[in-house]
Amino acid sequence: MDMTHSSTASMATADQHLVDGVLARRRRALAKAITLVESTRNDHQRRARQVLTALLPHTGRTIRVGISGAPGAGKSTFIESLGLYLIDAGKRVAVLAVDPSSSVSGGSILGDKTRMELLCQRDEAFIRPSPSSGSLGGVADKTREAMLLCEAGGFDVIIVETVGVGQSETTVAGMVDAFVLLQLPSQGDDLQAIKKGIVEIADLIVFNKADIDERAAAAARSQMRAALTMLRSASPNWRPPVLTCSALGKRGIVEFWAEIERYQRLMSESGEFEQKRRRQAVDWMWSLIDSGLRRYFRSHPKVRAALPDLLSDVAEGRTTPGAAASRLLTQMKE
Amino acid sequence: MDMTHSSTASMATADQHLVDGVLARRRRALAKAITLVESTRNDHQRRARQVLTALLPHTGRTIRVGISGAPGAGKSTFIESLGLYLIDAGKRVAVLAVDPSSSVSGGSILGDKTRMELLCQRDEAFIRPSPSSGSLGGVADKTREAMLLCEAGGFDVIIVETVGVGQSETTVAGMVDAFVLLQLPSQGDDLQAIKKGIVEIADLIVFNKADIDERAAAAARSQMRAALTMLRSASPNWRPPVLTCSALGKRGIVEFWAEIERYQRLMSESGEFEQKRRRQAVDWMWSLIDSGLRRYFRSHPKVRAALPDLLSDVAEGRTTPGAAASRLLTQMKE
Repeated sequence: MDMTHSSTASMATADQHLVDGVLARRRRALAKAITLVESTRNDHQRRARQVLTALLPHTGRTIRVGISGAPGAGKSTFIESLGLYLIDAGKRVAVLAVDPSSSVSGGSILGDKTRMELLCQRDEAFIRPSPSSGSLGGVADKTREAMLLCEAGGFDVIIVETVGVGQSETTVAGMVDAFVLLQLPSQGDDLQAIKKGIVEIADLIVFNKADIDERAAAAARSQMRAALTMLRSASPNWRPPVLTCSALGKRGIVEFWAEIERYQRLMSESGEFEQKRRRQAVDWMWSLIDSGLRRYFRSHPKVRAALPDLLSDVAEGRTTPGAAASRLLTQMKE
Repeated sequence: MDMTHSSTASMATADQHLVDGVLARRRRALAKAITLVESTRNDHQRRARQVLTALLPHTGRTIRVGISGAPGAGKSTFIESLGLYLIDAGKRVAVLAVDPSSSVSGGSILGDKTRMELLCQRDEAFIRPSPSSGSLGGVADKTREAMLLCEAGGFDVIIVETVGVGQSETTVAGMVDAFVLLQLPSQGDDLQAIKKGIVEIADLIVFNKADIDERAAAAARSQMRAALTMLRSASPNWRPPVLTCSALGKRGIVEFWAEIERYQRLMSESGEFEQKRRRQAVDWMWSLIDSGLRRYFRSHPKVRAALPDLLSDVAEGRTTPGAAASRLLTQMKE
């Protein structure tokens, strides 16, 4: 295979330093590499691809955990308690975020400096807010790449946080090994999550703030278990457990992590762990190809010239969508 | 605008006869035109586009109603009762189906000749089973085009039936004016529909077979109404009503159609009716462009040569999805 386009062959010295810095676990190098990945400049993106390709052999020996929940479910407290517990157990923890609303809101998750105060201060933790570029797809692609950089930088556990906005849960579930839904023990919350299909993609469900009303938490837990019996499991080897915890009181964190480890063990033994990662990588490639094709199409001079008229013809019913699509595609190929 | 690619200028005499036949409301011509649209042959597709373009000015003066429901909800009985009622009211009714499983199952909906026996016999009705080609996208595109042909053929009401398989509900909701969810008065059914997000896209919800257990039907109805208050309405001018009926006993059909007419009136007055159709046509064009771009990409000689190796490199973690996508896109453009 022709390798001239990739690898470190043509890499600039500065970028080689960046690669070395990330591998030497220097935080500043990691932060700079992520900034490079997040840049929308074409030359930066080309350099970012080279840096990522060079670091790729050093990625993947981690567990990637997605944590989703509506605002108020206590995600940051949960992640802080979990992170501190993992550090005590000798692990290094990176926390990333996928929040497509952050460019509008100025960062509703992880952007607030006062959150995860204790975790922030630890050398074994690396916390990075959501990139503030436009679409969910763009934010997700950059978070995926940041995740690889953190892995090369020696972090063992990657936590990807997301807030329940539109399709962001599905997107995060598509980039992690285990997807966790954090819920409050109230029925409205349940229905929202079931409605949006989040329960269906969750590998673990945790009711947080269970100490506030233990009876309500127990009821919510058994209701959720009943609901789960009606849903198909994604894996024949795993039925999503429903746990309770109190992140603030640090109760249930040990049990939660034991379930994650059990999940990783069972999935690894059956080969599903590796299969899922392969499928995620291939799906990611196709989604990048699709958006690249759209960009190529839209920037083609003949398409740009013909599109406005054809769009209004289609909207006004003067031409069929099929005829318009066919005409535009023909013009692109000419 | 250059019109040489479209219009009837270059249309063969046979196809002009087809166009005239559809407009003259001849059933055989309509059936032949739909068969042409459903063909996968390139020359047939080109002819189908010309036929559609010629008929386009005669489409659109209809109401398009999607009817979805799990197997057993009584869709065909409901559609038959509704169809006969509409014919008695002086309308002509076309019934189409979107069922991507029909190529596997041999047609689980509308394929069975014994279904809708009474409606089948009426001249004012036209019933066409789901096209038996592969993917949901393909089936849906052909059904959309068949819908336009039926409209040009003088049918006033187009009913698109779909079964609760995967994404087919969303697809059908994207091609009709009013999307109806037919439910049974049992709680499991509710949860399934809420879970899959179908309730969220429904403009009307109908509990069928309400006469079997009227108390259960009333309870299901009020539960569904409570659930609906938690979901956002798609339109500020319309809150989806929840009705009960007994299609077999022909009860509730008149009330159902009155709601459809009220919906059409309110949406038309606010301009949303026309807006929705325009948006649907433009979305359809983009989805045809996306699949055309994928086909173009996959058939490009350099892409075909490089794809297998790069796919396995991505799956095995030897290259990043970003680098692989970028390399393939570059090769396509060269």
